[in-house]
Amino acid sequence: MAQTVDAALIIIGNEVLSGRVQDANVRYIALKLNDAGIRLREVRVIGDFEDAIIDTVNSLRATHAYVFTTGGIGPTHDDITSECIAKAFGVPLKRDPRAVECLLRQIKPENLNEARLRMANIPEGGTLIDNPISHAPGFSIGNVYVMAGIPRIMQAMFDGVVATLNGGLPLLSRSVTLFAGEGTIATPLARIQQGAPDVEIGSYPFMREGRFGAVIVLRGTDAARLAAVAAEVVTMAETLGVDARDGDLPPA
Amino acid sequence: MAQTVDAALIIIGNEVLSGRVQDANVRYIALKLNDAGIRLREVRVIGDFEDAIIDTVNSLRATHAYVFTTGGIGPTHDDITSECIAKAFGVPLKRDPRAVECLLRQIKPENLNEARLRMANIPEGGTLIDNPISHAPGFSIGNVYVMAGIPRIMQAMFDGVVATLNGGLPLLSRSVTLFAGEGTIATPLARIQQGAPDVEIGSYPFMREGRFGAVIVLRGTDAARLAAVAAEVVTMAETLGVDARDGDLPPA
Repeated sequence: MAQTVDAALIIIGNEVLSGRVQDANVRYIALKLNDAGIRLREVRVIGDFEDAIIDTVNSLRATHAYVFTTGGIGPTHDDITSECIAKAFGVPLKRDPRAVECLLRQIKPENLNEARLRMANIPEGGTLIDNPISHAPGFSIGNVYVMAGIPRIMQAMFDGVVATLNGGLPLLSRSVTLFAGEGTIATPLARIQQGAPDVEIGSYPFMREGRFGAVIVLRGTDAARLAAVAAEVVTMAETLGVDARDGDLPPA
Repeated sequence: MAQTVDAALIIIGNEVLSGRVQDANVRYIALKLNDAGIRLREVRVIGDFEDAIIDTVNSLRATHAYVFTTGGIGPTHDDITSECIAKAFGVPLKRDPRAVECLLRQIKPENLNEARLRMANIPEGGTLIDNPISHAPGFSIGNVYVMAGIPRIMQAMFDGVVATLNGGLPLLSRSVTLFAGEGTIATPLARIQQGAPDVEIGSYPFMREGRFGAVIVLRGTDAARLAAVAAEVVTMAETLGVDARDGDLPPA
């Protein structure tokens, strides 16, 4: 594999862990990072607990080029992300006049109560992340980017952030769908992987109308190599008498 | 909070990290664990990399009553979960005759090739987890439960597993939807939380048709206490002149 830049994502909030909501942020971030040449290596979903947030941020920022967080930067008592990030970095959390300005774009001065002003508390040394939707900013400090949890707002913040990151070559992918059980194609597929160390080959089984199959996903940074390995997979399938079609299985 | 039993979930596989698919297993497991009185404390999504799997399993099994994994127990080269679990526990991975029997329920003997037989390799001391869909079993060892990644198969395995776990009182939840920005209700809501340490109060903001609101989610083990705190939230909203309705916001 060409040199890649690694990232981790921390989803902060009890609502995914309790099953109340389905996560809606991982996929958006993952796909944009691929385009930026940054590989999402790990996602952690943790609750609104100070120790968990501090430990997770400090562990991941030491081992990844970039760390992104979503959630916990609103005005309510369970929004503790900003103060935990300040503690993780060992810096004070301060009312930031630039952030107050942002809030005043959305909130009338007479409604800017103490709870809402908490959203302008930023760890010292932080750089604001623009929120073009509801204006309460996110921030970055060191290699950690702190964003809102509401998907539409997170997406707008992340679109601004991702343009500023230093990635490698875009991570491309290409799929071939095989209509056979994985056990039928496992050995020749492993042989193709051995011969193509520059391409990461994944096999993702599916069941569709009682029939087993596998989507073979090729990832790498060189489109011509992905095309060549995809052709090898198709040839392998033909040799085995297995139906193959270019591309992913359409959603059920 | 009444004493609860904690669990962690590890989603193993590159397909969620690459953004190819949306995770479909967290929510199913989270909701069933609530019913079983087990609190899902953390989810980690990691790739098919030996070091990541071993380190993550060993870290989480030391700190949680139960650890569940999904993915990576098929027959292809990228299915390395079982051997990594064996290494994490420091035990050999062995061909298990009971697991071979399971495979033979689905696979004709002449098709039981070496790749498929890998699915019968189980860490020594493991207990099989029944797979009523496609028969290739999962397994548990210590407090770690290793399941398939395909949602339908994972769900069937987990339904069998969850009945055997020792949880606490079921974790109940109750919601009140408030049609006001979080900043409007943050301070009185924090006061309600201070007076109700036995109920975990979360505030989840939403934007719907340009209007801000928040779903207040109450979690705990005592239905009467949840009802009492929900009534406090409704009274608080009435005092502020904020529209409130019992229950969660319907999906958009």
